[in-house]
Amino acid sequence: MSDLEFRTEPRVQLLCCMGDDRTVAQRARVSTGRESGDPARDAGLVRRLITDRHGSPFEHVVFTHDVETSIFVAREFLRHRIASYSEASLRYMEGKPVVYVPGPERQLVSGGGAQMNYGTGPGDDNQRNQVDVEFHWACDTAWESYQVMLRRGVLREVARGVLPLCFGTHFQVTWNLRSVLNFLSLRVHDPSADRPSHPQYEIEQVARIIEATVARRVPVAYESFMANGRRTP
Amino acid sequence: MSDLEFRTEPRVQLLCCMGDDRTVAQRARVSTGRESGDPARDAGLVRRLITDRHGSPFEHVVFTHDVETSIFVAREFLRHRIASYSEASLRYMEGKPVVYVPGPERQLVSGGGAQMNYGTGPGDDNQRNQVDVEFHWACDTAWESYQVMLRRGVLREVARGVLPLCFGTHFQVTWNLRSVLNFLSLRVHDPSADRPSHPQYEIEQVARIIEATVARRVPVAYESFMANGRRTP
Amino acid sequence: MSDLEFRTEPRVQLLCCMGDDRTVAQRARVSTGRESGDPARDAGLVRRLITDRHGSPFEHVVFTHDVETSIFVAREFLRHRIASYSEASLRYMEGKPVVYVPGPERQLVSGGGAQMNYGTGPGDDNQRNQVDVEFHWACDTAWESYQVMLRRGVLREVARGVLPLCFGTHFQVTWNLRSVLNFLSLRVHDPSADRPSHPQYEIEQVARIIEATVARRVPVAYESFMANGRRTP
Amino acid sequence: MSDLEFRTEPRVQLLCCMGDDRTVAQRARVSTGRESGDPARDAGLVRRLITDRHGSPFEHVVFTHDVETSIFVAREFLRHRIASYSEASLRYMEGKPVVYVPGPERQLVSGGGAQMNYGTGPGDDNQRNQVDVEFHWACDTAWESYQVMLRRGVLREVARGVLPLCFGTHFQVTWNLRSVLNFLSLRVHDPSADRPSHPQYEIEQVARIIEATVARRVPVAYESFMANGRRTP
Repeated sequence: MSDLEFRTEPRVQLLCCMGDDRTVAQRARVSTGRESGDPARDAGLVRRLITDRHGSPFEHVVFTHDVETSIFVAREFLRHRIASYSEASLRYMEGKPVVYVPGPERQLVSGGGAQMNYGTGPGDDNQRNQVDVEFHWACDTAWESYQVMLRRGVLREVARGVLPLCFGTHFQVTWNLRSVLNFLSLRVHDPSADRPSHPQYEIEQVARIIEATVARRVPVAYESFMANGRRTP
Repeated sequence: MSDLEFRTEPRVQLLCCMGDDRTVAQRARVSTGRESGDPARDAGLVRRLITDRHGSPFEHVVFTHDVETSIFVAREFLRHRIASYSEASLRYMEGKPVVYVPGPERQLVSGGGAQMNYGTGPGDDNQRNQVDVEFHWACDTAWESYQVMLRRGVLREVARGVLPLCFGTHFQVTWNLRSVLNFLSLRVHDPSADRPSHPQYEIEQVARIIEATVARRVPVAYESFMANGRRTP
Repeated sequence: MSDLEFRTEPRVQLLCCMGDDRTVAQRARVSTGRESGDPARDAGLVRRLITDRHGSPFEHVVFTHDVETSIFVAREFLRHRIASYSEASLRYMEGKPVVYVPGPERQLVSGGGAQMNYGTGPGDDNQRNQVDVEFHWACDTAWESYQVMLRRGVLREVARGVLPLCFGTHFQVTWNLRSVLNFLSLRVHDPSADRPSHPQYEIEQVARIIEATVARRVPVAYESFMANGRRTP
Repeated sequence: MSDLEFRTEPRVQLLCCMGDDRTVAQRARVSTGRESGDPARDAGLVRRLITDRHGSPFEHVVFTHDVETSIFVAREFLRHRIASYSEASLRYMEGKPVVYVPGPERQLVSGGGAQMNYGTGPGDDNQRNQVDVEFHWACDTAWESYQVMLRRGVLREVARGVLPLCFGTHFQVTWNLRSVLNFLSLRVHDPSADRPSHPQYEIEQVARIIEATVARRVPVAYESFMANGRRTP
């Protein structure tokens, strides 16, 4: 029985948010100082801003998301620099550690030699079992080594070096709508996009949840983003 | 009787805000996932973050300010790049234009040859009158030229070239608490600061109003900023 | 006879540069540690980076441009935040001041009521003369007011408020190739672009010179930018 | 006999650089357009810029460093957002993998219960051996799991999840002098600093090499940085 908690899904939630579709329209209208008061005209304006590449009004809507995912997903995520991060340090980790392993939906194998791994297949039962076995074995081994070192008095910041990239981490990100849309355009695959991107599955899991929170919070901006081939304004 | 509205004070207001002192503490505590629930301990943590230069938790508190000021103040303000701006375009200006002129508090003359103008004096009545006369004369002349060109069918974007830097502009800025504190450390003179800065009077007028909104909204962070010699975390 | 120097063209030069097309390819190949040594393969890689939206390798090529232009162009230019600026302060201005006025190529009038001024016309001789007269009159008047105030002992930082937006300024900008391409996609009108932009004529004058320096320095990246509808990588 | 190459030291080199101390002075002097031509006056100016917190001239000097280090150091490094990164992807890793393990200089144990691990001790021979054994065991195990999965046809991007944080990575970073100095102020411990920081040993190893390249390339700026208590301009 492992000391680790194995998960196949990230946890993402919207913690707080400033502004909505109306805010985008208001910031774009700062020149006249008038709110339109008319949702239909606001919507038209937001759409035009995206088409005309006037991105700055979208920066006035700000989100904070809370994300629990693996370290290797966090590595890709934190490459997005127009954002503010607070991340849990492994130096102060408490409680039962979480490990992310491939779930049943995860494509495991190359789908026929495509150089960039764009074509992939689910893998057969043997492959799936093997992955499961190796992840558990590697993670339990690493965790045991880590624990042994701690018990001998070794510093956490030293011992953590043996922990694998699939170990969980936890961070909160505050970013504006323009930066979020850029993230979504890169980290969610949508064949209908102007230039479809090919993110890794695990970060796409995170991105899809974020996308849902955005679609709910700023439906007009989101619909315009989609109508424009998922191009960042 | 001038077609222009002359002002000596900027107008600044806090439009909206996400988060407060508690948010700073919560983001810093993401590692443990626990809220302290205890304002006193939150305050202690916020103070320590500033002393230890852990600035990122302060980035999760976000403000939007609305600013009406002169173009030359806006020029200095917009040099602060960690911020999002929507600014009124002179291309779409409507209503009676606003002009910013030196008010009675403004030091007008050099206080005895100090190279950087740090030493200044109020100026005598003659000097004060002269400034008043010249600002009105230059602004009215420019505005007349501008109007003449518009009446002849010249594009606003061409004609505006004659308008002076003291003409008013209007912008909205969304920025995080860390960026705001950096702005305040540079744009407000405080002799008790670790390294007192020497901002121009007009941007300091704006900055002082912003400072008051921050002090009200995040009193603990603000007090820690002050206690640390106004150093940005 | 005016004390001012009137110009119709900005002055822009490339001061220094780090890297070239080969650098972009090398940074993209950091994963394998091998330089290809083969310009043709480098070119193919650079093209693919733009198509696939891998923008970061372009950030390792850096330019410094020196720009002399009007204050209102500088205002638009400095809105680009992924860049480092050093700008001359009017507080320390020396020598004969430069003023930017519309040249013979400048479209002066609206081409028939288009709301956004996208349709424009050259203007007739009367209009052209009027513009010339008003710019000279407004600038000479402002400059005289400025000089009068200085002679009376008023601080430069106060007196400069009367100077018009067409007065010249001088700045140096250090920015990476990705940021430069984004600037060019917004500030140069090209009907063949994926989404043609509609910059104001005066900033486009500046941007076209910058574009020429980029085309010379990184011809492969530039050609790929063009082939991709002037989309920023 | 391990398939892995174990290292105790990072590898860092300066790949290229734009500008030097003279550049900082020139950018600061853009207002007058004159080069001083006099190194002594340049030096005085650079010192004053740091004291007076005029940081932007330092942004015109740009470096590219090449860094080979562990993934956990890279994680801390890439939190610095005012920088451009190209990082090797584990998806395309080739050759014998590198692993970073604690060397003989590394303090391994807590020096007596200090909460933040600031007080540390070298550890005795038993502890040192234990760390060595655990790192080798955990890394060899993980690498074997990784290899087994690859041989079964599993995608590299899946299999890499088992690799530990002490595995090596390779990246190139392009950043300006101001951003580098900020990094050094946080990532190198110097008791003589105004506010001494307490970086983790492994990132400090990297930072010290970077510091040496900076001290050589911009000796005047570096000396001013030191004289000002290692405060970022």
